[in-house]
Amino acid sequence: MRYELHYWPMIQGRGEYVRLALEEAGADYVDVARGSRGMAAMDRLMEGKGTKTPPFAPPFLVAGKQVIGQTANILLYLGARHGLAPKAEPGRLWVHQLQLTIADFVGEIHDTHHPLGPSLYYEDQVPEAKKRSVDFRKARAPKYLDYFEGLVKQNGPYLTGRRLTYADLSLFQIVEGLRYAFPKAMKKIEKDIPRIVELHDRVAERPNIRAYLASERRIPFNEEGIFRCYPALDG
Amino acid sequence: MRYELHYWPMIQGRGEYVRLALEEAGADYVDVARGSRGMAAMDRLMEGKGTKTPPFAPPFLVAGKQVIGQTANILLYLGARHGLAPKAEPGRLWVHQLQLTIADFVGEIHDTHHPLGPSLYYEDQVPEAKKRSVDFRKARAPKYLDYFEGLVKQNGPYLTGRRLTYADLSLFQIVEGLRYAFPKAMKKIEKDIPRIVELHDRVAERPNIRAYLASERRIPFNEEGIFRCYPALDG
Repeated sequence: MRYELHYWPMIQGRGEYVRLALEEAGADYVDVARGSRGMAAMDRLMEGKGTKTPPFAPPFLVAGKQVIGQTANILLYLGARHGLAPKAEPGRLWVHQLQLTIADFVGEIHDTHHPLGPSLYYEDQVPEAKKRSVDFRKARAPKYLDYFEGLVKQNGPYLTGRRLTYADLSLFQIVEGLRYAFPKAMKKIEKDIPRIVELHDRVAERPNIRAYLASERRIPFNEEGIFRCYPALDG
Repeated sequence: MRYELHYWPMIQGRGEYVRLALEEAGADYVDVARGSRGMAAMDRLMEGKGTKTPPFAPPFLVAGKQVIGQTANILLYLGARHGLAPKAEPGRLWVHQLQLTIADFVGEIHDTHHPLGPSLYYEDQVPEAKKRSVDFRKARAPKYLDYFEGLVKQNGPYLTGRRLTYADLSLFQIVEGLRYAFPKAMKKIEKDIPRIVELHDRVAERPNIRAYLASERRIPFNEEGIFRCYPALDG
């Protein structure tokens, strides 16, 4: 079965967590909206044409007859099929719990440049973004990262033990993104999270991930995505 | 098995979505932090004492030897056990997808009074909260609610069909909360979402929910929770 991933074609965004899982799994997939007429196909499904389970927003995955929305939910589906999560329920829920915590973190990262909400441009909320980013750099980012650092310390080398899960791929992406968006702050923070840095490097060296990162399928970071390099927000 | 729910004892908050599911199911549970020494028990688990799966934040559920965090993840677990979600995977993922969309909505509701982040008090971010709330009332809340209204119209009387799921209980809570927090705005919005209002009323009349709402187990809304009645934010 060839999966169809539907997501905004110009950004990594939330779709990237799904792309990383598909790539690590070596799954057959097409990144629909990056092809011709792909945006129209994405819109049709969101309008509920051809599906009884229309998603509220991208990303979503078409898997045979199923249309599956919400990043963490897609990963829950893929994890079970591609060895990216334990099969037994307790382990499966634990990995999903970590992914949902990463999703909360991603939401807070997004809000650093959009504290007044998604309807206004960043340029219309710069003073507020600066305020929110101070708290993010000093309190929130260290709090999330310390939590994950503690888990890698307890379980290592990956978040839940010896085997890689989709949550590790997502944590890799968090490190990549924070380095891009907050290079100054991240340089300081990384001193306190050596195990996460090591996990990041370990993921980057996995053959499928390394090949993906070097390919054109990996969209470069830019100022339309979740992680944006705005020096004004980096202190 | 008696479940232990761990959540802040003074607010409905995110714990309320779990409470509603436990109550509808008639499950045996104790709301730990509302009892004596309950907060200490909650803190211990969050520090990883006595569990290998410490949650990042409340709510979390202790079910036998499992400690399960993240609201939607807890509902995924409970739904399968208590007839609050389909057993087959496609239906299970669909209900979970809706719950995760509700979780995104809840995040945006929280941000109306905390646009600069969770570390500052509301009183320290009133101008920003007013700005964010305008967009919330005019764009974001209607967008989410229209999506759910469309699903009830398509599938009704509940979100996914004839059978109640935990996502319906959560949507009930959304209506309750928005009426409390944004009474003026909600009065206008409700004209466009008659099916959600009907779903809300249907949930409220279910015997277990009705009994719960009338009991002292239901904590009243207040200005410490997700839904806060700040007239300045209601336009």
